[in-house]
Amino acid sequence: MATKIQASNYAMCFVSSMILNLFLIFYLFVRTEWQLSWSTRAAAEAEAVASLSCSGHGRAYLDGLVVDGKPVCECNTCFRGPDCSEFSPGCAADVDSGNPLFLEPFWTQHAASSALLVAGWHRMSYSYNDHSIISQELEKHILKVHAIVGNAVTAGRFIVFGAGSTQLLNAAVHALSLNNSSTPAGVVASIPFYPAYREQTDFFRSVDYKFFGDTSLWKNTSDVPKNVIEFVTSPNNPDGLLKKAVLQGPSAKAVYDHAYYWPHFTAIPAPADEALMIFTLSKLTGHAGSRFGWALIKDEAVYEKMLLYTDENTFGISRDTQLKALKLMKAILEGKGRELFDFGHETMRKRWENLSKTLSVSKRFSIQQIAPQYCTFFQKVRGPSPAYAWLKCERPEDEDCHAVLSAAGIIGRRGSSFSAENRYVRLSLIKSQDDFDLLLHRMNALIFHEEDGIKTM
Amino acid sequence: MATKIQASNYAMCFVSSMILNLFLIFYLFVRTEWQLSWSTRAAAEAEAVASLSCSGHGRAYLDGLVVDGKPVCECNTCFRGPDCSEFSPGCAADVDSGNPLFLEPFWTQHAASSALLVAGWHRMSYSYNDHSIISQELEKHILKVHAIVGNAVTAGRFIVFGAGSTQLLNAAVHALSLNNSSTPAGVVASIPFYPAYREQTDFFRSVDYKFFGDTSLWKNTSDVPKNVIEFVTSPNNPDGLLKKAVLQGPSAKAVYDHAYYWPHFTAIPAPADEALMIFTLSKLTGHAGSRFGWALIKDEAVYEKMLLYTDENTFGISRDTQLKALKLMKAILEGKGRELFDFGHETMRKRWENLSKTLSVSKRFSIQQIAPQYCTFFQKVRGPSPAYAWLKCERPEDEDCHAVLSAAGIIGRRGSSFSAENRYVRLSLIKSQDDFDLLLHRMNALIFHEEDGIKTM
Repeated sequence: MATKIQASNYAMCFVSSMILNLFLIFYLFVRTEWQLSWSTRAAAEAEAVASLSCSGHGRAYLDGLVVDGKPVCECNTCFRGPDCSEFSPGCAADVDSGNPLFLEPFWTQHAASSALLVAGWHRMSYSYNDHSIISQELEKHILKVHAIVGNAVTAGRFIVFGAGSTQLLNAAVHALSLNNSSTPAGVVASIPFYPAYREQTDFFRSVDYKFFGDTSLWKNTSDVPKNVIEFVTSPNNPDGLLKKAVLQGPSAKAVYDHAYYWPHFTAIPAPADEALMIFTLSKLTGHAGSRFGWALIKDEAVYEKMLLYTDENTFGISRDTQLKALKLMKAILEGKGRELFDFGHETMRKRWENLSKTLSVSKRFSIQQIAPQYCTFFQKVRGPSPAYAWLKCERPEDEDCHAVLSAAGIIGRRGSSFSAENRYVRLSLIKSQDDFDLLLHRMNALIFHEEDGIKTM
Repeated sequence: MATKIQASNYAMCFVSSMILNLFLIFYLFVRTEWQLSWSTRAAAEAEAVASLSCSGHGRAYLDGLVVDGKPVCECNTCFRGPDCSEFSPGCAADVDSGNPLFLEPFWTQHAASSALLVAGWHRMSYSYNDHSIISQELEKHILKVHAIVGNAVTAGRFIVFGAGSTQLLNAAVHALSLNNSSTPAGVVASIPFYPAYREQTDFFRSVDYKFFGDTSLWKNTSDVPKNVIEFVTSPNNPDGLLKKAVLQGPSAKAVYDHAYYWPHFTAIPAPADEALMIFTLSKLTGHAGSRFGWALIKDEAVYEKMLLYTDENTFGISRDTQLKALKLMKAILEGKGRELFDFGHETMRKRWENLSKTLSVSKRFSIQQIAPQYCTFFQKVRGPSPAYAWLKCERPEDEDCHAVLSAAGIIGRRGSSFSAENRYVRLSLIKSQDDFDLLLHRMNALIFHEEDGIKTM
């Protein structure tokens, strides 16, 4: 009897075990069907590099330096050591550049939706199947992003892609200056303005255009060149104010640089509806390194000329970069844009509030005022969250404001870079959190010692 | 007794089944440790698109058109249908462009080593950690490729990256023309030459340089401008011949366009050792769409000026594109370059032999002669395998050779594009196998009917 029970127990155990086996085999079999093949190696390489811990003050890259066969951490400014955990005490807060690293954490948090696998044979051809150098799918997705944000009228516009806004700024000047005139077109901008307008226009030494300086000099004069091209940056770099063209009339043409016209940095009162508008991935998603921008153009002849410029200059934009931009647009649209803009706006708002609070007790320094405004994207009145602080040294003796800040361990960009007085300095608020935290720390120390006039490192 | 044996059998079965259980669980557990996480979705998307069958006459892309939520095949010229299996009978052989699709099969065969996973947060910054716009790792790998091929002296050279050779050609002209002279530098090239030299130089309308036409016009004249910039294409596009600068002396500067100086297209008699040499990924790996090239420069001042040009023009090259180029360089180096160059050379050699054989019976058409030469890379004397056939219509009445070929269903590029006679036509041999096969087919038919003068489609 006992043996019978034993046999029956063994049988039951065997059946259970067999069921488990079948389940496991089925699981393995089904999984095998979904297994990856040729992409596994690339995926594993990327994950291995990403898994390297850099203490939140750096990151490793697939194309980073390799030491002893292993990738190493690349540390944020002021951090060092194998895992970027060591702070360099005397290090200055470098807030000079407009490097949009404030969005980096957003993408590490959205790793799956923004990762991209590029096959070795992806788009080897010079042109897409429709013989163009512009990806139709990317164009569609860019228009969708504008539609959900409501920051630009896209109906009846042509689109041209460029290597960031950088290439498109000069492409626009080139296109607008061709008018069979014997005198070069005059390029102008309102002080304070983004340095590239002057630099580029001077650099390419074209017979067709020439930099003429501040817009206001040409407002009420009969010396206006036959053809004037006005750069209008809205919101403005460096001061974050929304702007409109100053010059009007048949010989005045405006290039609207809308790099910062996104909810991160400004209220969106209405969709921009200008004849030539330039946008860039750099200030939308933070991918400055990808070098991708686009222009929305009303006039077909201007569009043709700008397209030809990008064609003659670089044969269009890297197809890999266009694919990357498409992936990012898709990732934005997955959350209907709310996630990215909530993150971007919150980060920038907090930084502005912290800096404003610090500066509110100072008599020595002031920053620009931006009024709260109704935002059609967030559907509420919202306060400022600009990309840059346009700081002014108020003391008569502080004529070189950059030097005053430098002595206190803060590296900004001097006013003269924006054709303004050196009493002004631009502080970038869009760099990494480490950079911003250090800026705030140094600024607090500087203001704390304001009364006793001690310059603090 | 029978029950006892039964019990013992059940026990044995149970133990065996348990062992299998443990093995399967262990296997699953260990595998789980190696599983991918955030990269899986991107990898699966890429593999799904790649698995679409397009009959070998097309392929689907991640950024291709989507119909009913699914990617669709993009077919080679002359093929159509959902899987590209239908040949369009009247379709002309389009061998106009220099689209290097002959290397596409190499990369589909090397899918694993050339696939690249780009993280969403890859290199968002404007600059690399060393504040440059040039990836050090990529530079290192490019130099390694030159070292194994032996086609360029790289010691003591500076490197600048550009958007294909396209951007670098004008960057070079810009850099070499800045000499504080009141007269613009003259840009010249020897007929037949690549059209971009003239087009670009004219297009940018700089005060510093001007296109002056054929080099030979300036050889023995005192009218030579103070400063002459000579484009030297070696091997030459369109005729594949190895070339040297014609103009000498202190006021003559040469830009060597070495786009085709790779074992696919020519014997490598010795490493090129010029002061300014330009290479492009397009003709090395076939990735024309990636828009990546590089210049090797001896003179530091010229290097600085070219670097500044790419900086002002596009703020350098997309970091994603640099990463892609690095991956391709690594893939080349895995096989010590033998695999890629064996494939490239074999493909081009066979195409040349087939075309030559077809044309050998013709009195109406001839193509350029290229002598066999010792190749230091393959370490043997090797015959020609040029990128293009430079075809001549020999009959006096066939002055418009392009029209003669067009009527027979062959679209080449007319001689006048290369500033040569229209008695010549360039036929591209580097496009897809489909394009080449159709060219051969149409050419055979044309020559077959040569005697009776019938023009055949």
